[in-house]
Amino acid sequence: MPDDQPVAANGLLDRRLFLGGTALALGGISSSAADGEELSVEPWMKVPGSPFVGYGQPSRFEDKVVRVAANPPNAPGTGAARTPIHRLNGTITPNGLHFERSHSGIPDIDPEAHRLLIHGLVKRPLVFTLETLSRYPMESRIAFIECGGNGLQLYQKDAAPLNVQALHGLVSCAEWTGVRLSTLLDEAGVDPGAKWILAEGADAAGMSRSVPLAKAMDDALVALYQNGERVRPSNGYPMRLLLPGYEGNMQVKWLRRIKATENPTMTKDETSKYTMLLPDGKSLQFVFPIEAKSVITQPSPGLVMNGPGLYEISGIAWSGYGRIAKVEVSADGGKTWAPGALQQPVLSMALTRFRVPWQWTGVPAILQSRATDETGYVQPTRAELIAKRGAKAFYHFNGVTSWGVSEIGEVKHVYA
Amino acid sequence: MPDDQPVAANGLLDRRLFLGGTALALGGISSSAADGEELSVEPWMKVPGSPFVGYGQPSRFEDKVVRVAANPPNAPGTGAARTPIHRLNGTITPNGLHFERSHSGIPDIDPEAHRLLIHGLVKRPLVFTLETLSRYPMESRIAFIECGGNGLQLYQKDAAPLNVQALHGLVSCAEWTGVRLSTLLDEAGVDPGAKWILAEGADAAGMSRSVPLAKAMDDALVALYQNGERVRPSNGYPMRLLLPGYEGNMQVKWLRRIKATENPTMTKDETSKYTMLLPDGKSLQFVFPIEAKSVITQPSPGLVMNGPGLYEISGIAWSGYGRIAKVEVSADGGKTWAPGALQQPVLSMALTRFRVPWQWTGVPAILQSRATDETGYVQPTRAELIAKRGAKAFYHFNGVTSWGVSEIGEVKHVYA
Repeated sequence: MPDDQPVAANGLLDRRLFLGGTALALGGISSSAADGEELSVEPWMKVPGSPFVGYGQPSRFEDKVVRVAANPPNAPGTGAARTPIHRLNGTITPNGLHFERSHSGIPDIDPEAHRLLIHGLVKRPLVFTLETLSRYPMESRIAFIECGGNGLQLYQKDAAPLNVQALHGLVSCAEWTGVRLSTLLDEAGVDPGAKWILAEGADAAGMSRSVPLAKAMDDALVALYQNGERVRPSNGYPMRLLLPGYEGNMQVKWLRRIKATENPTMTKDETSKYTMLLPDGKSLQFVFPIEAKSVITQPSPGLVMNGPGLYEISGIAWSGYGRIAKVEVSADGGKTWAPGALQQPVLSMALTRFRVPWQWTGVPAILQSRATDETGYVQPTRAELIAKRGAKAFYHFNGVTSWGVSEIGEVKHVYA
Repeated sequence: MPDDQPVAANGLLDRRLFLGGTALALGGISSSAADGEELSVEPWMKVPGSPFVGYGQPSRFEDKVVRVAANPPNAPGTGAARTPIHRLNGTITPNGLHFERSHSGIPDIDPEAHRLLIHGLVKRPLVFTLETLSRYPMESRIAFIECGGNGLQLYQKDAAPLNVQALHGLVSCAEWTGVRLSTLLDEAGVDPGAKWILAEGADAAGMSRSVPLAKAMDDALVALYQNGERVRPSNGYPMRLLLPGYEGNMQVKWLRRIKATENPTMTKDETSKYTMLLPDGKSLQFVFPIEAKSVITQPSPGLVMNGPGLYEISGIAWSGYGRIAKVEVSADGGKTWAPGALQQPVLSMALTRFRVPWQWTGVPAILQSRATDETGYVQPTRAELIAKRGAKAFYHFNGVTSWGVSEIGEVKHVYA
């Protein structure tokens, strides 16, 4: 097959085309030949620029790149604010745009007064200040966090006319740095009878969840830093629990208490919420890891396609079970698939960026992505997922998302 | 050697101590036994927290974690603002704290009006808008950027009484996403006679540097995103050149023009500055990659040590020649060395975090770190570096930095 042939229907190309200039032959590149060889001197080159500031902000021209909150009425700090993933690229979410989910607003915690207590079935209950915690050995890891409720609109009968931020914006990724919870539990001395821990937050909701002790002793972190700086208030300042790959709600923010217990505590947040309602009316409780999922972020609803030509289809994939092994992209609603290039390094339980070049000829298309993780698990179609979970399900939606592209380049959320 | 024995003099320990609770036996952990098993309910748990905002900020309690600018008088936007690396952890620098170096302030660029011109010795001059550039295949990489002038105070005869931010804060690290410059140059069609490019910025200084074409065709990026969001104004909005491993000044911000040339252009910024003055009065020009370097960020001057006990010694290492292979830490001024644990994954030309546990007994100590990169190059002592470069040198200081710790836990910059 010649290099410049599509690798799947509707114009999906081989990325290697761009590594040796072959793409030129396609004539689809969107740059313009320069008329002369001079650029005009723009106004901002004629005056001295602005001075330094202690803590920088984005350009004023990027004021639309913000989180959007969806809150119940009269509950200003309860609900969620979603990351504008359609306007981001790469894999790291900047701290100002990391998604938030709060059950009673963002507490204003004085770090000097905050304490972390470890108690329950332990030989030696311990209390930590931020200063004492900071003297322990730390480690960093890049990890995604996804709210268990992300994508819930796709369980509905009709495709919601929303963009990817509104549909899937409750996922973000950061470099988290902190102390292994196992280090602290080892010091406290966990009794053999303990099989779970309770993690409780210092917000007004006292948000709390039960976590298997095995996970707490494996890769859980008490995170003190987010992308290098102290964890943001909306993400748990001064410390949060990080449980790589588990649903976001369990990664308790504003962490104040870890209690070793024999059984799960059956808190309000794991009985009234975060359970998976099945077709027969029963609920699955304690579904912890996030199943493999992917979504195309560019193009996606609300972004403009300026006529036929070459584009990059790009998106994010993640799995709570380990590394992403493969992401395939379709431009014909799932009939044919092209392999996406995965941005290296692919890290376990981190967002993975995938990319496929696309020569859009101006015909209608349906864009989809499908992730496979290192366990061999393949992201299901929406229909497959609903056949299994039923239409009453609410959490852990990880089916394939479809974007319909019209002849004039409008992109809409569709079921396909 | 028993596990709890120091691995180097003055209390440097084996990090594996902490993986199985052995450290308990040392009695040096700084946590406190809990008196009862209850925490008081703090004020912030008694009221609903604050609502969501579109773009988040750090806690108000972190208002000291800011860049500090050192500018010439009457030149508010000329100079540099340094990253508070002593207050950060992990490897990513949050965008608000990435260091800045500006030669005529930060231009306020309208991204709709901004253009990138590629011209000179090319078959087909091209001009790009931000929109057209965004349709090309992109890639992401985590890369450090260090100003060529970082650490220049350490060439001075006496140890400057400064903290690590003031001494070495002109280094940061981010995930950069953009289009490979080679893709754009391939489309323009570089003439065989071209061996260099000129890169010019759209600031009022028209900051410009010459870059070997080989580097431009290798791993150079036209970066559009920084840690996921659009590049910050102080870092080149809406686009900058990224030259992994090269001195920061060459990674031209507010990039407006790439001109393919036969020879270096000899711009003011590569003739009057960014050359290396040697003992004989001659200067080395075009010293591009940053040599392997490391510095301990915790503890460091200005941070308080609260009495004897266990601490984590932690810092950052980087090399413009590839991956960091090893970082060693000394607590006795370089007589004995302990291996630092390197945070995985270790990426080429990115900051690498190293860590060593330290049991400080309250005796004076001199802390040092020494990096080795994958080429086998070893970070020199300050004396070795000055013996080679002379005391008139100014740029590319990468000698070992020493922190003196006094009996009362004060940490000061010293020469040792």
